[in-house]
This record gives sequence, C-alpha cells and structure tokens, in this order.
Amino acid sequence: MTRYTAPIQDMQFLLHDVLKLPQSGLPGHDELDRDFTAAILDAAGQLASDVLEPLNRVGDEQGCVLENGVVRTPDGFKAAFDAVREGGWTGLDCDPEYGGQGMPYVLGLATGEMFVSANLAFNMYQGLTHGAYSAIHAHGTDAQKRTYLPKMVSCEWTGTMNLTEPHCGTDLGLLRTKAEPQDDGSYLITGQKIFISAGDHDLADNVIHLVLAKAPGGGEGTKGISLFIVPKFLVNEDGSLGERQPVSVGKLEEKMGIHGNATCVMNYDGAKGWLLGDLHKGMRAMFTMMNEARLGVGLQGYAAAEAAYQNAVDYARDRLQGRAVTGAENPSGPADPIIVHPDVRRMLMDQRSFLEGARALAFWAAHMIDKADAGDQDAHGLISLMTPVIKGFLTDKGFDGTVQAQQVYGGHGYIEEWGMSQFVRDARIAMIYEGANGIQALDLVGRKLALDGGRHVMAFFEMVKGFIREHEGDEELKADFLDPLKAASKDLQAASMFFMERGMKTPNDALAGSYDFMHLFGHVALGLMWGRIAVAAKAALAAGEGDEGFLRDKLTTGRYYMARHLPMTGTHLARIRSGGDVVMALDAARF
Amino acid sequence: MTRYTAPIQDMQFLLHDVLKLPQSGLPGHDELDRDFTAAILDAAGQLASDVLEPLNRVGDEQGCVLENGVVRTPDGFKAAFDAVREGGWTGLDCDPEYGGQGMPYVLGLATGEMFVSANLAFNMYQGLTHGAYSAIHAHGTDAQKRTYLPKMVSCEWTGTMNLTEPHCGTDLGLLRTKAEPQDDGSYLITGQKIFISAGDHDLADNVIHLVLAKAPGGGEGTKGISLFIVPKFLVNEDGSLGERQPVSVGKLEEKMGIHGNATCVMNYDGAKGWLLGDLHKGMRAMFTMMNEARLGVGLQGYAAAEAAYQNAVDYARDRLQGRAVTGAENPSGPADPIIVHPDVRRMLMDQRSFLEGARALAFWAAHMIDKADAGDQDAHGLISLMTPVIKGFLTDKGFDGTVQAQQVYGGHGYIEEWGMSQFVRDARIAMIYEGANGIQALDLVGRKLALDGGRHVMAFFEMVKGFIREHEGDEELKADFLDPLKAASKDLQAASMFFMERGMKTPNDALAGSYDFMHLFGHVALGLMWGRIAVAAKAALAAGEGDEGFLRDKLTTGRYYMARHLPMTGTHLARIRSGGDVVMALDAARF
Repeated sequence: MTRYTAPIQDMQFLLHDVLKLPQSGLPGHDELDRDFTAAILDAAGQLASDVLEPLNRVGDEQGCVLENGVVRTPDGFKAAFDAVREGGWTGLDCDPEYGGQGMPYVLGLATGEMFVSANLAFNMYQGLTHGAYSAIHAHGTDAQKRTYLPKMVSCEWTGTMNLTEPHCGTDLGLLRTKAEPQDDGSYLITGQKIFISAGDHDLADNVIHLVLAKAPGGGEGTKGISLFIVPKFLVNEDGSLGERQPVSVGKLEEKMGIHGNATCVMNYDGAKGWLLGDLHKGMRAMFTMMNEARLGVGLQGYAAAEAAYQNAVDYARDRLQGRAVTGAENPSGPADPIIVHPDVRRMLMDQRSFLEGARALAFWAAHMIDKADAGDQDAHGLISLMTPVIKGFLTDKGFDGTVQAQQVYGGHGYIEEWGMSQFVRDARIAMIYEGANGIQALDLVGRKLALDGGRHVMAFFEMVKGFIREHEGDEELKADFLDPLKAASKDLQAASMFFMERGMKTPNDALAGSYDFMHLFGHVALGLMWGRIAVAAKAALAAGEGDEGFLRDKLTTGRYYMARHLPMTGTHLARIRSGGDVVMALDAARF
Repeated sequence: MTRYTAPIQDMQFLLHDVLKLPQSGLPGHDELDRDFTAAILDAAGQLASDVLEPLNRVGDEQGCVLENGVVRTPDGFKAAFDAVREGGWTGLDCDPEYGGQGMPYVLGLATGEMFVSANLAFNMYQGLTHGAYSAIHAHGTDAQKRTYLPKMVSCEWTGTMNLTEPHCGTDLGLLRTKAEPQDDGSYLITGQKIFISAGDHDLADNVIHLVLAKAPGGGEGTKGISLFIVPKFLVNEDGSLGERQPVSVGKLEEKMGIHGNATCVMNYDGAKGWLLGDLHKGMRAMFTMMNEARLGVGLQGYAAAEAAYQNAVDYARDRLQGRAVTGAENPSGPADPIIVHPDVRRMLMDQRSFLEGARALAFWAAHMIDKADAGDQDAHGLISLMTPVIKGFLTDKGFDGTVQAQQVYGGHGYIEEWGMSQFVRDARIAMIYEGANGIQALDLVGRKLALDGGRHVMAFFEMVKGFIREHEGDEELKADFLDPLKAASKDLQAASMFFMERGMKTPNDALAGSYDFMHLFGHVALGLMWGRIAVAAKAALAAGEGDEGFLRDKLTTGRYYMARHLPMTGTHLARIRSGGDVVMALDAARF
C-alpha cells in the first residue's frame, strides 16, 4: 500500500546549488556536474522504487528465519541484493584499487538515503558491509585488504560489527570474549555476541565478522580490547573459500521492527581471527566503523521520515473528510481532502521542514567527510563534533516524523496493512543502536565539546556568525531566517557557557543537560542549513535559473522551520539551566 | 519479563490529601475514608498484578483469532474476565438499581487505571461496556434499561460503539449505514462499520452494539444520524437469549498493538435495532459515550506510561554499565547500575513527573464528573472544557513516556521478549482512537473555548489565580511551584487572547495553533496539579502525618516537572503566535 519516489530534485539542488559540487574543494572529482549526478541519482531512485520498496512490507511480514543453523531472508531479498550488487551500488564510493568506483561519500550517502527510505532493513546488509570495508581499509594490512576488500566492495561477502555482549553494550570494558594467540599469528576467538545485525543470511557467500575481544596482556577495561577479523568461511591462499569456522547463530531476535534484517546472537567457539589494527587498540579501529555507522544511522532517521511523509501526503490528498473552515475546496465531492485542514497541514509541514533540513545536514556532513578524507583538518574536527548531533537529533526527530505521518492516517495508521506502523517500528531502532541517543549526548558534551581545546565548537559558532554577517544585508532573509538563527545560536552559546562554567566543578549539571544540548545543537544546525538553502534558492531565483516553484517552496518550507521548530531552543536552554540537582535529587533507592 | 505494582500510596494520597474525599462535596459517600478506599484499591491492585498483568504478553503474542465467524480471545482471557466480573469490578461505579455498587466515578477510574496498566487490551472489553452502559443509562427508556443494564453492569453482556465506516471516521455526516423503520417500532440496520473494538469475542454471552445509522427523514450530515441498540442475540421477554442476529465479523484487523483486543469489521445485514434516545439526535447520545471514552483513553495514555516506567526503573537498577561521574557507587561490582547516570535519571524523572501529574489530573477530572453528576454545573462546564486536553495531552505524553521507558533498556528495549515494545505499540492507539488528537485540539479551540461565552476557560484561569493567591505567602512554594505556574498560565492566557482576536477573522490562525494550544493547556493543568500536590504534601509534613519519605519525594518530583516540563509553554506560545499563514503557505498541490 506504500510507495516511494526518490527526492532527486532536492538532492540535485543540495549537491549543486547548496554544496556547489564539483567546484567546492573535492580534488579529482571534476566530473560531478549536474548531468552526471542526475544519471546516478535517477538510476538509484528507480532501483529503490521498483525493486527495494515493494519488498519492504514482505520483509516486515516474513522476517528472517533460522533453520538448521542457517538464516533465510525474506522472499525476494536475494534477487534484490543481486540487483544492487550488479548495478555497482555497493562500491559507489569505495576505493578503485579494490573494485570501487571512487565517487565521493556524499554520493554514496545520497543513494544510500534512497535505499534506506525504500527498505531500511534490507539496506543494512549492505550498510554494515560498507562499515566493515572502511575499518579494514583504514586499519588492515595490505594482505588483509587484498584478501577481503574486493569481495566486500562487491558485496559478494558482507560484513558485521560485533561489540555487544549480553552483559555489556555501552560499557565495553566489561566484555568477556577472549582471543587466544596461536603460533601462526592468528587468534582463537571464543565468546558470545548479541544484537549482531546481518549476522548471518543467505545473500552472500561469506560473512566477515569484525569482533571485539580481549587478548592476553591488555589492561583493564577498554584498554585491553582488540579488534579481529573473523570470517564465517576461512579464505584460502587463492581467494577461494575454505573451511566453515565454528561461528554459529545461537538465536534470531524477535524485534519491534526491521524484521527483514537478521539480528543474531553469535557464538564464537574457538573461531580463527586475525588482528585488525594494533593489539589492544581495538576501540580505535572500531570507531572508524562506528563513526561511519553513526552517520548512517542518522540518515536512517530522516530517510524513514521521508518515506513515511510521502505516503502521509498521498493519504491527506485522497482522504475526504470535513470541509475547509474557509469554504469548501472540493464542492462537487462529499467532503474536502483532509490536506485542507490546518492541523493536518501542520503535521505535514512539521515533517517536511524537518526532513529537508535534515537531508541538507546529512549531505553537508558527507561533504565534510569527503573534505576530511582529502586532508582538511578543520572539516575533520567539525564532523567529529557533529557526528553525535546528527545521529541523535536526526533519529529522534525522524522517529517523531514517522509517528506524525502515521497520525495523519487516523485509525488506518494503526492497521499494519497500510504500512505506516512499519515506518514507526523500523525507525525506532535508529534511536537505540550504534550508541543509544543518550550516549550520543554524552559523547557530545563529555568529549566532543572540549576536543582540541573547544576549537571545533568555536569553529561552528564562527561558521554561523560568518553566515549571518555575510547575508544580513538581505532584509527578507534577515527577518525570516537570520534573526531566528541568531537567537537560536545565542541559546546554544549560552548553554555551552553554562557547561563550561559548571562542567568541571559539578559534572552532573552538564550531564543532566546533555540530551537537551544535543537537540539544541541539532536545531541550530538545521536552522543554519535552512539559511544556506534559502540563500541558494534566492540566488537561483535571482538568476532566473532552476524550477521557480521548487525554489519558492524551499523558502516557504524553510520559513516554517524557523517559525515553528526553532523556538524549541528556548525550552532546551531553560531545561539545561535548571541544572543537575533537580534531576538527581530523588534518591535512586526511592524510584 | 515485565511486572506491575499498583501505585496505591499515590492514589490514596490523591483521594484523601489532595481531593479530600469524602468531605469534598460528594453527597451520599460518607463511607469513603482511608481504610475503605485502601481495601478497594488493594484488592484491585492484586487482581491487576496477579491475574491481568501476566496475560499482557500472552495477549500480544497470540492476538485474537477469527474462526468460522467466531472470535477467540487469547488463552486465559476468559478466566481472567470471569475473575474481574466475579469480583464485582465491572459495576463498581454503576447504578445500584441495575446491580452496580454505586461508588463514585473516581474510584472506578482508580481501579480502571490499574487494570489498564496491567493489560490495556484486556481492559477494553470492560471499558467499552461501561461506556455503552452509560449511554443507555442516560438515554434509554425504562424498558431498555431493565433489559440491558443489569447484564452489562455484570459484564455478562458486553458493549461496543459503532461509529466509523470505511470512508468516514471524523466526518460522521458521511455515514451510510441505514436504519429502516419496522411496524413493530424497531429498525432494520444495514451497513458496514470498521475499527469496532471488542466487536466480538468469547468472553460474554451477548454483545450489545450501539450503532450510528441514518433513518429516513433526517437532515443531511450529522443531523440525520440516530443511535440504535443492536444486540448480537435478540433478548426474549423473559430476559433469555433468542435468535442470533445477522451481525457478523467481516474481518479482524492486524494492528500495531492491543492485539489482545478484537478490532472488528462489523457487517450489519438487516439486524434488528432499537432507537436509543431521540430520532435524528444520535450524535448527542453517542457523545455521552464518547466523552466518557475520551477520559478513559486519556487514562490509557498515562496508565501505559506508568507500567512502562515501573519496568524501566527496575532495569535501570539492575543493569550495570559504566561508573557514576562523581565516583563509583557500586565499587564492589563490575560497574554501577545505570540509574546513577544523569541522563538515565532524566529519562526516569521525565516519565515519573509526567505520570504522577497526569494521575492527579485524571483523578481531579473524575471527581469533577462526580460533582457534575450530583448537579454541579460549574464542574460540568470545567470537565467539558478539559476533556479534549486530558485525552490529547495525556495520550501524547503517555506515548512519549513509553518510548522513553523503552529507551532506558537500550538494545533490549527493541526486543519483544522484554516487553517494552508492547507498551509503546499499545500506547500508540490512544493518540488515535476516540477522535485523533488533532480532533481533540479542534474540539478544544473550535468549540470548548467559546462554550457558554468562554465562561469555563475563564473559570479555569480563576482557579489557577485563586490557587496562586491563596498560597503565595509560602516562599518555598512560591519559588518552586507558584512562579513557574504563573508564567505558564500567562502563556496560556496570551494564547487564548491570540485566538480570540484572530479566531473569527482568520480562523486558520486559531486552527493552525490548536495542537500547540492543547499541549500548552495540558502543561498548565499539570502545573496546577503539581501545585496542589505540593500544598497537600507540605500540609501533611507540617502536621507530621503520613509517610515523610513519600511526601518529600512528591515535592522533589513536582519541582522537576516545574523546572523541566513546564518551560515547553514558551515554545508552544511562540508556535501559536507564528500564525496560520506559515502553516498554510505551501500550496496543497505542491506537497
């Protein structure tokens, strides 16, 4: 009952009018003109709509099944996975040395958004492989890269990340999985990992597990942790598959959503593993994968909201109920479509203004990563700072968006057949995995704010100030966009000051406000994005270029964000300033 | 994996210290002292914890099944329903003339909260029966009352409400179900109704459907609608069951949650029905049922949040992960329980301070209904005004509470086995049914605000002002409770003024802000409740009466609400003031 249409016009606008590819400092990517990216986006959009989206509900209904130790994915997943691989989509932004197409990450993100909107659970098989690819690419030996990467770029083999154990998730220092060194330089891995997405399945010939474990001689806590490559099937010298390892699926979890993805309990019973990166420095190597995954999860948040929004718009146009208060708009019909009602419009505009702003932020972040990969240290610092904001804020608000889209459907939204429940259930996971959003807030306030002496948050504020200064000559822009952005940014600065003054002496003051700070930051970031979108739209309108209706809609939608979302910053600041005492006052024993 | 413990101490505090039963103007209820209500609440709490709660997950997993036209409820539901009936719980606040126990509604609400917290889907069978009982009690003939009420009070027969049809829910003027008058004074009812909760099942001998239908001679739209009593089995003169009527279940809906309740497509194929209330005035009669149902649904919102919260507290105490930033609190263990972390504490306090305030509001509302039933017109006006606020605000925030409780569990919250997903999925319906929350907001702003010349909203403001005046001599109370309440109430008055000034000329300005207004109103109402709770707690402390720890916790939790929830009023006001243009600016065709 659902449909998905890739938002190609918006993506093209972001790539070319806002980010200004290819002129914007990405060496070696002169080919990225409008026609080139349009061809890529069109093809990906078609695959998403025609192949992946129709399997979304199939995946939800059938789920994955564990039979005789083997995981079977839902009907059609294998053929679709082959179609994705054969189209070369899995290696779009991967290293050409290992069979990738060497496109910038921002294009991988754009096509990834489409695939996620169309079928979140399905895309995780590929997404996790990409993360594992990145970790091996960054930390692997040449031999490891040659052995694993070509097959992972093509997704003939897929990848996983194994962190969590039954008794530890956030606090990985507690983990118990053991790595015993062998004479041949390998290790034997023994232990149980849980919540392993795409842990096993029938889509690929091999699964390359990246597993955190403790090898002898490491310190206590996270210092003693190393990262290991543990393939499901050993790989022979010639690249062919050898022995099946003692790695098994103990159980498939029954989850609230993403039923199409196999969430596995993985048992490692003396499986051979090879150290990835340095001994006892596994957390560092894993963070390469985690940071990418966190951006990818932030993307899931708004991509799910995009799909849900499109369907809510359709329903609001089709469903006839009541009359516009300002006079019938469908007088020949029995009632008006519910899109005429201001409160329905509010719900749609809430979703739309969030998700278009979120897309701009995600594209901007991907562009920063491309710059960082090309050696731009400032970009690297900015994206480190913003990663928890993107993960936490976009998934929280993305989930809210799916709930709102479901609400547009009234009672039908609660019936599984209509598909809106699935968007909500699927989007819910994004607030939890890859570090629950509270952990993102902790990372932001506890680590990222003070990183490099607070240089990156200052750079962010400078970026906002510089943007406002540059454009405040435009009266209309000033009133609708810059003034609200300035006010919101002042709230963010005040909150940062509050933390700096209190953080060292009374850390609970900062930590009790961390979640609100993450949201406050997110709103300012989206406010800035809407400012940049408005500038680009006005420039294109002034130049008489582009689709006038589209550009005017951008300004209209942006005004909504500034007027109706951005005032949240005041509430977040008030909450932060209420401090830690009020949060911690009730004795833990008395809850 | 979940548990539920009835919050009896809190309920007793509300009944006796805050509402001051039995002295507070309920004639004929002198028996309601602390011991009396304690006995009732204890017994209901035990039933909820021991009998209903263990069936909650069973209901979710098994759901209802339609076999050969008959609906089968999950294992154990029948025995539990009998236990509820045999305990006399179904008629607690019903008219003694028909076998009820004649207790005030506030006690029915208190025990209802427990049953809902323990098993939301299960309690709907009884809850809908109570609504149908009320409608027949208010609008039925003596003969109808004698025929149906005794069996409905005891839940030997259950009731339903049939409004929605495939093409109309909110806009009932469009409905097509027909009522053809017969010579014997009955009507033949023909049509299809959807989303009929408890539409059929194996818990009772008969199902009494209240069905909206159009009889000849009525006007267009809702004016032509009448309400009919349509029993599944005809009732003979002697009260025994007669012929099975042509009323059938076309289908059971597959829903996101409340699987234990049968949501039916009901087909009426010339079933005999009898007019309830006046011809062509069915909406009025149905609203008796709807208003009660709306309060009941508001209760579902916070009752689900209560159950989820209790389990989140358990998990936060049990789960060891990380160390308190202020120094280890469980130094002999591998890590501290996560309840030491400020952000976990924030989540728990968010839930707790909301749901205790919500309970106070629901109890206050029930008490107002009791007063209204005893002839207090002011109470009647106030409760009419507040019904949409209670339904809309408590279900939205209650759902948020379940999501937050799930979040406390991290990855385990997403796994069905742990039970937190069910709380979220079940609570979601409360935002939708009995009038989606957007409709509540419309009712509030479009109807209730101006009702009787705005007298009731003025009475509400007077109540807030009077409360502040009465207590502002208490410095501590003033700073922590009264000043924030005053500020929030000012925001509500400003919003009301905005609507009054704009509402007539530019109705979209009011309608575009209606949802924010409902939430703004809800926050002020909960702020007022927390003020009253604080006054009662301080009085008891001063008198040296009651449980000191409990009373101090009340003050602590209330301070949290005032400091961390109430600042939302500023954001809601800003959104409201941004007006209707920004909401309606995007052309409907361009979404």
